[in-house]
Amino acid sequence: MKQLLALFPLTTEQQQQVKDLGVNIVTSADLDAHRVAASDINIIYGWDKTGVAVANTASNQLQWVQTYSAGVDYLPLDLFATQGVQVTNASGIHAAAIAQSILGYIFHFTRGIWAAEQRRPQQQWQQSAPDLLVADETSVLIFGTGHIAVEAARLLKAMGVHVAGVNHSGHSADYFDETYAITDYTAGLAKADIIVNIMPGTPETTGYFNKTFFDQLTDKLLFINVGRGTAVVPADLETAIANGNLKYAALDVVSPEPMQKGNPLWTNDHILLTPHISGVMDHLDQRLFPILFENLTQFVKDDTLVRNQVNVARGY
Amino acid sequence: MKQLLALFPLTTEQQQQVKDLGVNIVTSADLDAHRVAASDINIIYGWDKTGVAVANTASNQLQWVQTYSAGVDYLPLDLFATQGVQVTNASGIHAAAIAQSILGYIFHFTRGIWAAEQRRPQQQWQQSAPDLLVADETSVLIFGTGHIAVEAARLLKAMGVHVAGVNHSGHSADYFDETYAITDYTAGLAKADIIVNIMPGTPETTGYFNKTFFDQLTDKLLFINVGRGTAVVPADLETAIANGNLKYAALDVVSPEPMQKGNPLWTNDHILLTPHISGVMDHLDQRLFPILFENLTQFVKDDTLVRNQVNVARGY
Repeated sequence: MKQLLALFPLTTEQQQQVKDLGVNIVTSADLDAHRVAASDINIIYGWDKTGVAVANTASNQLQWVQTYSAGVDYLPLDLFATQGVQVTNASGIHAAAIAQSILGYIFHFTRGIWAAEQRRPQQQWQQSAPDLLVADETSVLIFGTGHIAVEAARLLKAMGVHVAGVNHSGHSADYFDETYAITDYTAGLAKADIIVNIMPGTPETTGYFNKTFFDQLTDKLLFINVGRGTAVVPADLETAIANGNLKYAALDVVSPEPMQKGNPLWTNDHILLTPHISGVMDHLDQRLFPILFENLTQFVKDDTLVRNQVNVARGY
Repeated sequence: MKQLLALFPLTTEQQQQVKDLGVNIVTSADLDAHRVAASDINIIYGWDKTGVAVANTASNQLQWVQTYSAGVDYLPLDLFATQGVQVTNASGIHAAAIAQSILGYIFHFTRGIWAAEQRRPQQQWQQSAPDLLVADETSVLIFGTGHIAVEAARLLKAMGVHVAGVNHSGHSADYFDETYAITDYTAGLAKADIIVNIMPGTPETTGYFNKTFFDQLTDKLLFINVGRGTAVVPADLETAIANGNLKYAALDVVSPEPMQKGNPLWTNDHILLTPHISGVMDHLDQRLFPILFENLTQFVKDDTLVRNQVNVARGY
């Protein structure tokens, strides 16, 4: 019988569905109380420090981790590669939330919310704001053309935005007006008012948005990071804003997280900050469980997985 | 030769197009300097106190006012009715901006921006926020099903929102899942998480969102007013929030405007305030002039208008 360590909540109904497949559900409390040995766990649903402990247990029998996130850079991927642990992620289910967060960040600046909030402490009501743009007169360049980017592009296109994308090869993607290879996107960048990073956290993307990148920008409206905090060099971003290369930024991710008190980003009033919640949703379990269940149904038959498999070596 | 008082800016190119129709362009400065008599003005493009002065000039020859707004409640409509002055509005051109503002207000609360801003002064980065909803699990009830409401409904539907509308008769409208008559919308209200007012400012809508209305609400997420400030009784709204009938509000309009210092709304941290800019756009002139020009082309022929005519007696 497969042992599934549930580090992400399962409803009573979901627990029954798992048991009906002949899978035993184990909790962190079961491990702590030695009712089940960490070395007996085959499957982990979710992730936290207990997952780390299982993966580091000698002679463990971990075979598969189903994450609650699209990005998997927080997992011990090198260890998994050695141990042959498979990973499936939550790619797809965060797309709507993140795409809607991106719209929220854009409209925060283009619909005068930012300006109103700046003036509110002085109780200053003034029927004006800078940069009151309508979406159809803006152009957005998205780094990344995966599930999340496609959903963002779909919504932006519905409002008449010109949407361009950047990916490895420059291959086309649904809802994108045009796409560029990451080695040659200068023409796309020149047209863009708004730049969005949704690239996964990999060695290639670490520090990508640095002085060299920001120095290319001239009077851009907004830079949004919903990818990984490591992709951006914060001091270089702040310099770009101070120098007028860029007016505003919205950062849902920073590095390291949690962001510490005293970080200069806190007091930069041209930067909107959210605490890595662009993809968080109150009812995630209702969207995540179907992925687990579809994979689990196959896994109990032949130890293979059918949906959202991650290339552990590549990291996404 | 018709005399057009330009109270809204015309570009050099637009001025030439007007002149080519055989219409003379008059400015406020021309009136102030008595180069043209206020009583000679036939057409007003835009509106301000100079327009009021023209309308009140004895034996004036004012025939038509082309506004820059969709709502026309700030015009002396009774006087216009008496004088037979026609009014055309800017209905349609603000729809995209206002619909996008509505999305901005919704995502401000459902994508954790509000919570992040509340915690920012304390430099508190915490990966959580209340009410992190995805659009497809929400239901929106819009009071009004005109141009602006239809554009809002179109965008909301693209994200899977359930969209209901309220209008006079309950007649159907594009992109609305269902519509209710204003005399009988209880069933629609029961389903709604988010309530949006886009009704015009008329005697019927004045004070509509009062204690009686808010007392019907139970644990609603958000009330948005992009209609007219007069539609809402602010103290009743604040009480509804304090009592938990409603969590948040976003008010783009208040009464009177400008909102004065010391107004208790300023310090209600559950209410987002913007200064009547939901429909304001930097490049309005490029969207407004085509309406003026199309009407003017007909008007010089036979004093009739072809687009965006307002029923002066009804007020919208």
